[in-house]
Amino acid sequence: MQRHFEKELESLKINIIKMSSIVEDAIGLAIKAVLNRDAAIAQKVIDSDERINALELEIDNAIVDLLALKQPVAIDLRLILAAQKINNDLERIGDHAVNIAESSLMLIKTPIQEPLLEIPKMAEVAQTMLRNAIDGFIHADPKLGKAVLEQDDTIDELNRKMVREVIQLMKSNNAAIEGGLELIRVSRNLERVADLATNIAEEVIFITQAKIVKHRADEKK
Amino acid sequence: MQRHFEKELESLKINIIKMSSIVEDAIGLAIKAVLNRDAAIAQKVIDSDERINALELEIDNAIVDLLALKQPVAIDLRLILAAQKINNDLERIGDHAVNIAESSLMLIKTPIQEPLLEIPKMAEVAQTMLRNAIDGFIHADPKLGKAVLEQDDTIDELNRKMVREVIQLMKSNNAAIEGGLELIRVSRNLERVADLATNIAEEVIFITQAKIVKHRADEKK
Repeated sequence: MQRHFEKELESLKINIIKMSSIVEDAIGLAIKAVLNRDAAIAQKVIDSDERINALELEIDNAIVDLLALKQPVAIDLRLILAAQKINNDLERIGDHAVNIAESSLMLIKTPIQEPLLEIPKMAEVAQTMLRNAIDGFIHADPKLGKAVLEQDDTIDELNRKMVREVIQLMKSNNAAIEGGLELIRVSRNLERVADLATNIAEEVIFITQAKIVKHRADEKK
Repeated sequence: MQRHFEKELESLKINIIKMSSIVEDAIGLAIKAVLNRDAAIAQKVIDSDERINALELEIDNAIVDLLALKQPVAIDLRLILAAQKINNDLERIGDHAVNIAESSLMLIKTPIQEPLLEIPKMAEVAQTMLRNAIDGFIHADPKLGKAVLEQDDTIDELNRKMVREVIQLMKSNNAAIEGGLELIRVSRNLERVADLATNIAEEVIFITQAKIVKHRADEKK
């Protein structure tokens, strides 16, 4: 019985890692679609959303079964509830990947080729945060989680800078208005990805240190 | 023992109702701040966020205790897990109220007084959806949940219309660019409130009918 339960916990962990990997790819491709103005890659991201949603549901159902049939307590219960939240956060990151891919399609269609301004830097920071949050979960390493928390201010500052720069761009050229709106949308979505990576990092720290750091980030907003 | 458990379930339900009520007020006030250009009301919304975050955490901890100590199964387990998701959705609606309040402060400072375009209509629809979702939970009424799901397309269409109108506004007057961006931000936040009301409605239907309608809305996006 005990061994069977451990097997199911392991299988849950493997599924979360699988989910992380698909979502991380989706974000990577969405960013590539923006940077390279590549519609085929954008479409790939949009198509991947169905698989992400299906996997989220599968993991969610497995968690309900685990809770109902095995009635875990203490550290196991904590791990399972954290996995549930991480699963939900990853699905939301997948939605942001779709939003970014949709914006890239709009940016390809705009009359002028917009400068990407802070987008490449923001993409790099958001992807590093996501990678560290996921690695923190896989290796149960709170240090990686803490590294993520420290970067949240950087992305917020880049987002603010981006909005200021896009406003200047729009004012200097009316033809940049549609594209500018999409650039801001990409920027906000990257900021949200970073927020969700922060949520995952908080769960990782919670699992590994039983310490609630949630709403620390919220307070700063 | 059994009676004690029922008492805790009831207390959880009451706390979710309390949370709903605070969040619904926050959204109502945030909208009022935009419509009336009232900075004092906006500040009230921003200040209420701390209380919402604290209550979310309190409910979340109560749920973990319930799961660990009472090891609920079947319908009780399903109800508790749905409450956990609703709690999280409500907290996120609180965050959107703060975003809307912040935009109202920016709109008060912009050089020209922007027309609100589709905002009053969107606010009305989003508030009705939220009200129905919450009432559906309180009265365990799937009909109210289904009414919410049917309105999600309306708000998406209004949001798209809003973006088109703001682009025209920005193009006709460069001084409207900053305010236009804030109007789009309010519009997107109202759309997200409607999405979260839809999530809550799906949970209500799930609780009352044990039927998973999740990702129905996602697929349409």
